[in-house]
Amino acid sequence: MRQRNKPWADEFIEENRKLILEEPSQYKGIWQDVFNNDGPIHLEIGTGKGQFIIGMAKQNPTTNFIGMELSKNVIVSAAEKILLSEAQNIKLLNEDANNLALYFNKNEISEIYLNFSDPWPKNRHKKRRLTHEVFLEQYAKILKDHHELIFKTDNRELFEYSLVSFSNYNVTLKDISLDLHAINDLLNIRTEYEEKFSAKGHSIYQAKVEFNSSLKE
Amino acid sequence: MRQRNKPWADEFIEENRKLILEEPSQYKGIWQDVFNNDGPIHLEIGTGKGQFIIGMAKQNPTTNFIGMELSKNVIVSAAEKILLSEAQNIKLLNEDANNLALYFNKNEISEIYLNFSDPWPKNRHKKRRLTHEVFLEQYAKILKDHHELIFKTDNRELFEYSLVSFSNYNVTLKDISLDLHAINDLLNIRTEYEEKFSAKGHSIYQAKVEFNSSLKE
Repeated sequence: MRQRNKPWADEFIEENRKLILEEPSQYKGIWQDVFNNDGPIHLEIGTGKGQFIIGMAKQNPTTNFIGMELSKNVIVSAAEKILLSEAQNIKLLNEDANNLALYFNKNEISEIYLNFSDPWPKNRHKKRRLTHEVFLEQYAKILKDHHELIFKTDNRELFEYSLVSFSNYNVTLKDISLDLHAINDLLNIRTEYEEKFSAKGHSIYQAKVEFNSSLKE
Repeated sequence: MRQRNKPWADEFIEENRKLILEEPSQYKGIWQDVFNNDGPIHLEIGTGKGQFIIGMAKQNPTTNFIGMELSKNVIVSAAEKILLSEAQNIKLLNEDANNLALYFNKNEISEIYLNFSDPWPKNRHKKRRLTHEVFLEQYAKILKDHHELIFKTDNRELFEYSLVSFSNYNVTLKDISLDLHAINDLLNIRTEYEEKFSAKGHSIYQAKVEFNSSLKE
């Protein structure tokens, strides 16, 4: 998603450090204290403009949500919407997914969402795909046993690749949808991107996969 | 596929017992002798009118093919075409897939094909789906270690179900295509059904899955 440069983004982020947390490694192991409750903690990697995480936070008020988004220009859009929504159960991190084990303890996360992740179509970039083994290893560590990652995309090649990657890593496929919008699932919160590409006639693919304790080293 | 009743089918089958073999359990463990060569033996379950198995047999003249088809009215169409094609590396069985272990020894088969199998959409019929665990157990026995089952369908629900079934049974997904005809794969032999439904705009799904020795009891 190309974003207009927002010269005020840095300042906005500094002014909203209660929502967009700094140096997440300082919260490793004490995320429950950050939210000041004992609800489960769900993590979205690549939060974009925030429509999904806000919808989820409203639908599940006793769950805590952390949204990671690397782009400053995008995370400020999400932050503005979260502030307007007055949702108290969301925190944002202006980080990428390369260092999850620095930010979260083993078993600290109850669910992970990947929504319309960058497909990195070139084979030489496949290690950057968020469903590559390099990332699955990290998810396995921070996710509680028998908990799920939920992955949505409209990119056929990325979905095909991901199914094989899950299988090779011995992650169990629990539920697959090759046309998510064919079922009128009222619990499915759509991302901005999902609405746009579904309207263009793209099928939305979804995999729910379960990580098992045997995968943690 | 609804088929006109063919009153001559029984007689035709009896007259062509060199092609449509009787009592396959008598060949268990000696299929190599039936073909009188040491080429690998591939099995198609649900051969229909035979276009796929004939195409495969021509493309792979040193491989032996066994086609199973339960319907007498359908198997005679396949048999007629095979006779016309003069392919020597095909045998047919007028049987269903419920007793594979009676017909084949452990590790006797090098590849299994399921093409456009009956989706059995009702939940109470799911044990009849050819990708149900009940059948995967049999495939695991007769397939050589690290050999593949190749499954094609245009039925989305059956494909979704099958991916989950493979994963739960710990079969490894090696290659997934969610739109097989998007890639112009000259090696893909199309079934009659595949041509018809692809022309109607249906996506053709394909999974190549590998069975491992740990799955045999």
